[in-house]
Parts: sequence; C-alpha cells; structure tokens
Amino acid sequence: MPESTSRARLIGELSAEFAGTMILILFGCGVVAQVVAGGALTDGGLGDHDSIAWAWGIGVTMGVYVAARVSGAHLNPAVTLSLAVFKGFSWQKVLPYALAQTAGAFVAALLVRWNYTEVLAKADPDHTNATEIVFSTLPGNGTLPISQLGAFRDQIIGTAILVLLIFAVTDLLNTPPGANLAPFIIGLIVVAIGMAWGTDAGYAINPARDLGPRLAAFLTGYGGAWRDQYGDLYFWVPIVGPLIGGPLGALLYRLLISRYLPVAEQEPGRVPAPDE
Amino acid sequence: MPESTSRARLIGELSAEFAGTMILILFGCGVVAQVVAGGALTDGGLGDHDSIAWAWGIGVTMGVYVAARVSGAHLNPAVTLSLAVFKGFSWQKVLPYALAQTAGAFVAALLVRWNYTEVLAKADPDHTNATEIVFSTLPGNGTLPISQLGAFRDQIIGTAILVLLIFAVTDLLNTPPGANLAPFIIGLIVVAIGMAWGTDAGYAINPARDLGPRLAAFLTGYGGAWRDQYGDLYFWVPIVGPLIGGPLGALLYRLLISRYLPVAEQEPGRVPAPDE
Amino acid sequence: MPESTSRARLIGELSAEFAGTMILILFGCGVVAQVVAGGALTDGGLGDHDSIAWAWGIGVTMGVYVAARVSGAHLNPAVTLSLAVFKGFSWQKVLPYALAQTAGAFVAALLVRWNYTEVLAKADPDHTNATEIVFSTLPGNGTLPISQLGAFRDQIIGTAILVLLIFAVTDLLNTPPGANLAPFIIGLIVVAIGMAWGTDAGYAINPARDLGPRLAAFLTGYGGAWRDQYGDLYFWVPIVGPLIGGPLGALLYRLLISRYLPVAEQEPGRVPAPDE
Amino acid sequence: MPESTSRARLIGELSAEFAGTMILILFGCGVVAQVVAGGALTDGGLGDHDSIAWAWGIGVTMGVYVAARVSGAHLNPAVTLSLAVFKGFSWQKVLPYALAQTAGAFVAALLVRWNYTEVLAKADPDHTNATEIVFSTLPGNGTLPISQLGAFRDQIIGTAILVLLIFAVTDLLNTPPGANLAPFIIGLIVVAIGMAWGTDAGYAINPARDLGPRLAAFLTGYGGAWRDQYGDLYFWVPIVGPLIGGPLGALLYRLLISRYLPVAEQEPGRVPAPDE
Repeated sequence: MPESTSRARLIGELSAEFAGTMILILFGCGVVAQVVAGGALTDGGLGDHDSIAWAWGIGVTMGVYVAARVSGAHLNPAVTLSLAVFKGFSWQKVLPYALAQTAGAFVAALLVRWNYTEVLAKADPDHTNATEIVFSTLPGNGTLPISQLGAFRDQIIGTAILVLLIFAVTDLLNTPPGANLAPFIIGLIVVAIGMAWGTDAGYAINPARDLGPRLAAFLTGYGGAWRDQYGDLYFWVPIVGPLIGGPLGALLYRLLISRYLPVAEQEPGRVPAPDE
Repeated sequence: MPESTSRARLIGELSAEFAGTMILILFGCGVVAQVVAGGALTDGGLGDHDSIAWAWGIGVTMGVYVAARVSGAHLNPAVTLSLAVFKGFSWQKVLPYALAQTAGAFVAALLVRWNYTEVLAKADPDHTNATEIVFSTLPGNGTLPISQLGAFRDQIIGTAILVLLIFAVTDLLNTPPGANLAPFIIGLIVVAIGMAWGTDAGYAINPARDLGPRLAAFLTGYGGAWRDQYGDLYFWVPIVGPLIGGPLGALLYRLLISRYLPVAEQEPGRVPAPDE
Repeated sequence: MPESTSRARLIGELSAEFAGTMILILFGCGVVAQVVAGGALTDGGLGDHDSIAWAWGIGVTMGVYVAARVSGAHLNPAVTLSLAVFKGFSWQKVLPYALAQTAGAFVAALLVRWNYTEVLAKADPDHTNATEIVFSTLPGNGTLPISQLGAFRDQIIGTAILVLLIFAVTDLLNTPPGANLAPFIIGLIVVAIGMAWGTDAGYAINPARDLGPRLAAFLTGYGGAWRDQYGDLYFWVPIVGPLIGGPLGALLYRLLISRYLPVAEQEPGRVPAPDE
Repeated sequence: MPESTSRARLIGELSAEFAGTMILILFGCGVVAQVVAGGALTDGGLGDHDSIAWAWGIGVTMGVYVAARVSGAHLNPAVTLSLAVFKGFSWQKVLPYALAQTAGAFVAALLVRWNYTEVLAKADPDHTNATEIVFSTLPGNGTLPISQLGAFRDQIIGTAILVLLIFAVTDLLNTPPGANLAPFIIGLIVVAIGMAWGTDAGYAINPARDLGPRLAAFLTGYGGAWRDQYGDLYFWVPIVGPLIGGPLGALLYRLLISRYLPVAEQEPGRVPAPDE
C-alpha cells in the first residue's frame, strides 16, 4: 500500500476509535452521573448499580458497532496492546490508537460534564470524590477499604477476564457469535464484569476510559481528580493494571483454548479478521 | 411509478408509522403509568426507573418490527428529518410521516389513559405534574433543578446520540447486525439513553412521542400539560431539541465514520436500503 | 394424510403444547413464588417486580423453543384461537390445544406448589390471596382499586398487544427476526407487557396460564382461588378477556400492516409457516 | 483415531472444560461476593438478587463461548452425565470432564477469594455462613426454613429444567437458535432459573459449580463449609441432586418432545452435533 493511502487509512481508523470510545463514554459516564448525582437528589429514583452495569455494557456494544468496520473497534488501549502482542496488530499504530481512544473519552466526558452541570453542582457543590467517580475510578469506589495494591490486583484480573473473552468471541476458529452480533455479546461481557468485578476499583479495565474523563474532570473543577480518597496519586492504577491484565488474558486464551483449535487451513471460505 | 400506486403506497406507509409509534407508546407511557401511578399506591412495588428504560427500549424494538417492512419504521420525526437531510428520503413525505407518528402516539396515550384511569385518579386526584409525566416530559422530570435551556441542551445531545447510532447500525456499508436483529439493537440504544441521559428532560428525543401524549393528557384532564413546573410553556422543547439534535447526530456519523467506509460499489450483492 | 398419521401427529402436537406451557409456568409461577413468598421472608431479598417480568418473558422464550418445531408453540388459547380465525389453523384442534396448554400449566403449578411448600406455609399460613397471586391473577394484583370491569378491559387490551406483536414478528412477509431468534423476541414482548401492562390485572393475557394454576391452587389449599378480593367470582376474566383481545389484536395487525405487505407470490424460496 | 491423537484431543477438551467453568465461576462467585459482601458494606449499593441472576447467566454464556468448539462446553457434570446417558457421549470421559470442571471452578473461586479478601474480612470477620454463600450453596440460602430434603427436591427439579432446556435448544432436529447464539440463550435459561428457582437451595444445579468453590472456601478460612446452618453435612445435596435431575430432564425431553421430531434422515445438509 502506498504511504499516502496508508496514512489516509490511519486517519479513518483514528476517527473511528475516537467516535467509538466517545459513544462508550457518553453512556458510561452518563449513567454514573444519572445514578450518583441524579440519584442523590431523587432518593435513588433514577437507577442503581445495575443500571450502571447495563448502560456501560450497551455503551460498549454501540461503540463497537460504530467503529468495527473502519478500525476494528478496540476502544481500549489494553485491547490494542493485546492485539499487538498476540495478533500481529501493527506496533506503530498502538500509540495513535491509544491517543484517539483517550481523546474520544475526554470529549465525551466533557459533554457529560456539561449536560450534568446543574445536577452535579446541586448534589456535590464542592466537586469532591463523591461525584468525581462519575468520571474516573477510585479504590473501593471511594468508600470500601481497598488499598492501591488491592485495586491494582483487581484491575489486572478484571482486564484479563475482559481480553480473554474478547479473544474468545472474536476468534473465527473458535465459536464466535454470527449475524454480526459479537458487539452485543461483547457488551454483555462488560455488563457482567460490572456486576461481578466492580467492587474493588470500579472496573475501569481500560486506560482510555479512565484517563480521558479524569483529565476532563480535573479541568472542570475536580481538583482532586488525580488522587484517591487517601490522598495518594492514583491515576496510574487503572492505566498500568489493564495494560498488564490485557495481555495476560490473551496469553491465557492462547494456553487454555486456542492452541487446541483446528488450524486455519481447515477452514475453507474463512474470512481473515481485520487485524490479521 | 404511477401516481395512484404511489398514493396507495404512501397510505400503507402512514398506516405502518401510525401502528409502529402506537406500539412504542403503548409500552412507553404504559410503563411510566405503572411505575409512577401504580408505584405510588404500592410503595414502588410495580417497577422502577430501570423498568422504564427497558420497556421503552423494548417498545422501540417492537414498533420497528411492526413497521419496518412497510414504512422503514422511523417512528420519530427527528429520524424522518435526518433521513431526508442525509439519505434522500422524500421531503414530501416528511410532514405526513410526522403526523402519522404523532397520531399513533396520541391514540396509544389515550389507551393508556383509559386503562390507567382508576390508578391515576387514586394516585393523583388533581391530575398534576406528578402524573402528567406519565404522558409527556418535563425539565428534570418535574423535580430536579433544570432550566428550559438545560432541557433543550439535553434534548439536542440525546437525540444526536440516538440518530448517530441508528445511522451506524442500519448502514449496510458499516457493520450492521444481521439476521434482522437491528430492531433489537435499536431498542438497546433507547434502553441505554434512558439509563444515562434521562435526568435533565426525561429523554423524549422524539417530537411525536412527546406531543401526541401531551395532547392526549390535555384533552383528558391534565390542564397544565403544555407548561412545566415553573409555569412556562414547555411543549416546544422536546419538539425543537430533537429536530436539531437528530440531523446533528447524522452529520457527526458522516464526518467521523461514513466517509471512511468503503464505497458501495465494493459490495457485491448488496441490497439497497428502503430509503435509498 | 391418513387418519392414523394425522392422529399420531396430533398427539405429538399436544405433547409439545403441554411441555412448552409447562416450561412457561415453571418459570412464571416459580418467579412469583420466589419474589412474593420468598420475598416476604427475606425483606424483598430474592427479586422484585422486574424479576417477575424477566422470568415470565424468558419462560415464554424457552417454552417456544421447546415446542415450536412440533406444534408451532402457541402455548396460549388466545393465540390458538387467533390463528384459527386469521391464519387457517384447524378449528378441530383449537380445543385439544387449549386443553393441553391448560394441563401443562396445571402440572407446572403443582410442581411450583410442591417446591415452595415450606416458604408458602411460612409466608402465608392461611393460604390467602396474598400468595394466591403466585398462581393466578387478581384485579389490581389484589391490592389496587380495580373493578372486574377494569380488569376485563385490561385483559382485552393486553392480549391484543400480545397477539398483534406475535403476528408481526412471525409473519414471513413482514420483517421477522432471523436465525431462529423469534422465540427470544417473543419473550421480550412479554417482558415489556409485564412492565407496562401489569397493574390492573397481573397480565395473565393467556387463559391456560391462569386457569391451570388456579385449579392447582384450589386443589392444594387455596379455597378462595375462584374469587377476587371483593368476594366475587373472578376466574372468567382472564379467560374471556384474552379470547376477545387476541383476535382483536390479530385484526388490527391485518388492518394496519399486513394488507400493505407485498403478496406471498413475490417471495421466491419462501418456506410456508407451520400453520398455513 | 490413534491413541496418541485421542489422548491429545482429550487434553484439549479438559483444558477447555477447565477454562469455561473457570469463566463461569469468576462471574458467578464474583457477583455474589459483590452483592453479599460488598453490599453489606454499602447498604446494598453494589447490586441485588437480579444482578446475581444476570451475572451467573452471562457467565454461562461466556463459558460456553470459550469452550464450545474444543470440548462442547458442558461445564457441568450433570450435563456431561446426561449426554452420556442419552446422546452417546463417551462414558470414559465423564469422570475426566467432571474433574476438569471442578478444578476450573476451584481455581476461579480462589481468585474471587483473593480479590475480595479485604471486603470479605470487613463484612464477615469470622468467615461464617453469611459469606460462605459467596462460594457454595445452603438450604434456603442459609436463612429460609428449608430442610435438606427440601433442598434436595429443589436441586432435582431445577437441574431437570436446566437439562431439558439445554437439550431443546441444542437439538438440531428441533428449533435451535442460529447464528451461533445458543450460548446466549443457554445463559438466559440460567438467568431465569436464578429468578424463579433460587429460593430453596441457591440454584447450584451443577456439582462442579458447588464442590470446587466449597473446597476453595474450606481451604481459605471457611471451616464450616461442608455443613449447613443446622450443623449437618450438606455438600452432597448439590452434587447428588443435580446428577439425578439432569438425566431426568433429558428423559422428559425425549418423552415429551424429541420422539415426535422428524428423524435425522429427513434433514439434508445437516451437520452432526459434536457429541453424536
């Protein structure tokens, strides 16, 4: 491919990663704003933790539908890194993808911040940790007795589960869902992670999802955004943890499942995946 | 096509838009009646905000299944307008479609009003804003400190998200769901908008959905239906906001995604969409 | 077809209707037992009204998967009657189907009654209306101010919605879901009816679903099963209402949608539906 | 097949059963930890019984996607046994499969135990039955007045429902879901069993799901893991009950449905199932 074509294609890919991650965060930070800030003013009348799990999951589904054809819809630097390590995704594109994802999350968080201005101001006039969790995560969601190390452990395990399952349900040699419904099934993974692995660290499991909105919060009145409830710098945990956990999950998929699958040559008519 | 055939076809399309939007509102206003009025009499025992999100979303799914083959199942003037602006949908049909949608919503709201007569009368004998929200929306759902301008902003953003995603999941050049399951996925969009973007203005995101039931409420005892809790005329917000937001979302889809998609000629065997 | 083959086929169909309706009621009465009786003993800790809506809906999905190939999976006399009136389903089979459906519901209700013996006895030692609603329906679920006439109206409308939508999503000339997922979509119809049309009469919308379990309750200690909370005979409402509402919904589908659909001859390769 | 190939294939199958059951329990025990232990510290703010039903169900869906191609994704000794009795699955593989499933559940429970260390310690410092139910089941979930016999009855019926439905939705002669979405539908079965059949014994319906985590709990501080709240040995109930109920459900499927299905020879182009 000539360099100019390659460059044009990369621009499209970054635009799609930007848009897909923006959609994800419009739903993700939106639902936490509704449940946490709106909920504080309505005696919990606008949803609960299950709403958060469902809307994050559906946000993933929709982000993937938006971006899948153009960019492969990673929407998550931990997924991009895992694809580079195990599936031959171009290392040169890893950082651009991660930046586009983070930028999409940042813009979406600003939109949520804007639309929920009045409600956030009323529910938490001092813009404390209580509504900072609308945008970015905290150990034990700001209230449970989880240390940074505990949150770090949680982010590694949670992201390993996520990436193991993404690899499983998108592997054409395994048993992926058909009829272009993998985005729906991938959304369900995130629904269930929110329900089962959201206690210790708010299931960021995605560096872009956490860093972009954290920056947006910091720039719009949340001075304490970089620190946890103990006063320690925390922003690195939902970045480093997922970047370790993602490839770990991909490795487990390879060790436990994919090496036992029939080889590609046995699949007549198989369509190569975008990243191959 | 001879004019008589064209006219007969339009009648069928309007019938389908009427029926599909009627189904949507039978579930949509029905679930709010059950949760708000039934809930007031049973200590919340008949559902909560999540029920509202799910039943509205499933209502969309079913309305689309009912109408898709005959009319394309817009069910929403903001969608019809966006298709006229960006997809070549006939401008001559925009107003008839919008009227049929509003009529379907009106009739459905009357049925809900009839079936919930006793419960509404018991829960809110004076037919105030407290149960007016069963039928049409209010800033901050009648209780949160949202101004008309805040609600207007919310309706623009919310409808932009809706239409961006509808365009994404129905674009045959992108990655739409197969097996005729797009109506299910479109329903999930509305579920998640209800969970994440329902705080400021009750997520009408559809002029017909709001105006038809508002008129039905006004004609059946809700004298204050055209005004918000501050006493100001409000009915225009969920009409004008969505009509701006819808095309905005379609534009964003074009800018961020569809111009990077492969062109149609590269798709052998592609079936043109109804509105092309 | 020789008479003996026809008779053998009918036996299979009745067996499938029995099994499918049994599955439906195992989930349907099961979830109400868990939420109402189990909930009374655990401060609501075993589910709520949304659980009821979801488990009834999934019960429908599973009942349809069980029976669809052998009998067409009506699982509901109102559906069977509507198919006889509008789709040429054999009138001779209407009563046998209805009896098999009621028998399946009866046996399933006995199993629920048996498995929940201890919990029902503890939560409601006198076997009153409070737990009678585990098995069969009451006006306003036994507590809201709904008259028999109000419940009757509700059952007509609710069943009309159900059958209109079943006809829509199983009509091969319309836009039915593919990949054999119509049972899932049909389950969602019932989820949403439970959320939006369950206030006035507990959404029986199915004579077999109500009569079979009512009989099971009567035979196992619920002496008041045939009457409502006002002391009047009530069992006929969820029988007659659905039998009127079902064909009404099918008629509306014909008037509003199916007469505008392309005719069958335009569908090459179309597979006739089981009931044609 | 030469013995070495056969042995290699078995190793892959056991690896897949291990991995699939591990995924199931990572979500299953994870969600109970979040709701029960996390909930005790947050006034129920991290989910409720419905979260448990959904996350268990989605866990099943994901476990099946992971393992289906390599091993058939039984993930449950009761399913494996039923397939051996009714579908010709190799009797020699029954015990190895059951052990791999139990090992996967054991490892997953240890990961949940590790990640929820702080929260479990804070919510239940003495590691009593109150949080033992995070890992393994108790009669009446430890609080309702259910005897061992009642729980045994419940486990037989619940597993019969599960296996009847698994047989129905995976039988290529019946009407199974297409587009490789059976794992999603099978997950819904478990969602609904959790909602409707989870009162008497916590719906283990799977010996591996219960025994593996029970052992993990015992080894990590739960000294009372083998006994119920009455002090009696209980661990055998969720093992023996499902092993009886599973084949019973398969038998019912055969009696009520599959003997009325068209025979295989009438299905041109049919692909034999993995276990045939």
